[in-house]
Order: sequence, then structure tokens, then C-alpha cells
Amino acid sequence: MTEETIYWDDLDIGAVFEGGRHVMETDRIKSFAAEFDPRPTHMDEAAASETLFGGLSASGAQTFAVWARLYWDITPDFATQAGAEMRKIRWLRPVRPGDVLSLRFEILAKRPVPMRPGYGFVEAKHQVLRADGRPVLELQGWIIMEMRSRS
Amino acid sequence: MTEETIYWDDLDIGAVFEGGRHVMETDRIKSFAAEFDPRPTHMDEAAASETLFGGLSASGAQTFAVWARLYWDITPDFATQAGAEMRKIRWLRPVRPGDVLSLRFEILAKRPVPMRPGYGFVEAKHQVLRADGRPVLELQGWIIMEMRSRS
Repeated sequence: MTEETIYWDDLDIGAVFEGGRHVMETDRIKSFAAEFDPRPTHMDEAAASETLFGGLSASGAQTFAVWARLYWDITPDFATQAGAEMRKIRWLRPVRPGDVLSLRFEILAKRPVPMRPGYGFVEAKHQVLRADGRPVLELQGWIIMEMRSRS
Repeated sequence: MTEETIYWDDLDIGAVFEGGRHVMETDRIKSFAAEFDPRPTHMDEAAASETLFGGLSASGAQTFAVWARLYWDITPDFATQAGAEMRKIRWLRPVRPGDVLSLRFEILAKRPVPMRPGYGFVEAKHQVLRADGRPVLELQGWIIMEMRSRS
């Protein structure tokens, strides 16, 4: 870890982080679905148009994986150790081919990890946003980070 | 939809479904992480051994995607339209190369979708299990299904 590393101690309640950029490509939507969620609504335009979604859309599991990527892209300097638990994950809108996604998250709460000196939990609320600013995925979760005292 | 299709109406509270089989391969753990969650703990054995995980483990986003695949493999005859919301997602243990994962889920609750005649919500508790029966991922969520009356 370098001196620029951001530790558990460094994050303030209410701090907001924004950034990242991920373009949803038609071919990747289809290939991700073929491997992990092979429903017509994620793989076939014609069949998808007959579903609630009204057209091809990404698997929710892919959108979640893109959240993980955007989180990494924003926080390469965070001393993150692991995700711990999430709640309130909601897929709010279909993610379409060509959508350009970014991430916004806000620090909600912090507490030490019991019986793990040097580690702390951080809770944040995350929104994966389209280019028009509308959220497609919202989630709230705890991650485990290193404390500065451990470095 | 065929006459064997399972609709919202057909699922009983307390019903349990089990099955699926997914082998976690080292190369796929690393390539998934390279695309979506490029942390040393998911990509490099030596670096991973120095983290809380104590060795190479799959990205939580990959384990979640595998849950989606196992769910599909168990329920190809379900008239599922979409995932709606999840809560209480917990990654309980590291997922290691060679782990063989399966799914168990139980129906907890049902209710009609407001203002969407012919569709209903189903809540279930899911456990992704290792071959030794221990859960690596637990989640609880609502999906939207078609009602038989709509078919």
C-alpha cells in the first residue's frame, strides 16, 4: 500500500464518490446471458420484445457485475478487503445495448469488525446510473476495509 | 408456454427446489475477475494468500452470476418474467477453484403485482451450496412470474 491509500479511517460519513464508465455492448449482453442467465429477454431481440421488458436487456447479474467493475474503477486506492453483505438491491430499469453506465456512491455508516483488530466495516449506498442520470441499479451494502493503524 | 409450465399460481409457500451443478474453474475465476472485479485475491494465488481470504477465491459477482445460472437450470419451466428486488445477500465463505456448487431455494411468500393483472411476485430464500452442503451465498428476493390466468 502506498501513502495515497485510502483506509477505513479516511472515509467520512456522507462522502460521495462518482465516476467510472462502462458501455453495454449487444454482443456481451448476449454472451454473458448465454453463460449465466440464458433467457430470451437477454439473448434474442424478437423474443425479448414480447416480454415485460419490451426489448433486449442485460441480465441483472451482468449489471451487478458491471457495478463491481465500476466500483473497482473508482476505488483502486481503497484498502478494500472484501464485500460482506448487501441489502436492498433493486434493478430499477432495463439496461439496453448502448447504455453508458457510471457509479455514484455515498458513505452511510462505519464500524469496527468485531474480533478483527485492524479491520472496519463501511456501509454505502450505490447507484449505477445511465448517461441521462437515471439509476438502473441501486444497492446498499457493507464492505470490509483495512484500518490505517494496521498498515 | 407448454402445459408443463409452472405459473405463479402453482407455487406453494414452503415448497423447496434443489439442483443444478456448477464447477468453479481456476481459469474462469481469473478471467471473470479480470473483466469485472480485478483484485489480486481473485486473480493471483500468491497475492491472494496474503489477504483475509487466504488463497485464490472467486469474485462475489461471479458467485452471484453462478446463482443466476443455477436458478435457470432448476427452473426452465417456470414462467419467470424478471427479478425485482433482493435483500440479505451474504457471501458466507470463499468460493475456491474446484468447488462444485448447487442451489436450494424455498418459497416464502406470494402476492399479486399491483396494477399488472396476470403477474405475481414470489419471494424465495436461496442458498448456493458447496458439495459438502455448506452455503457460500445466501440471498432472499422477489421475482415476477406470470399467472396461469394470463396464459
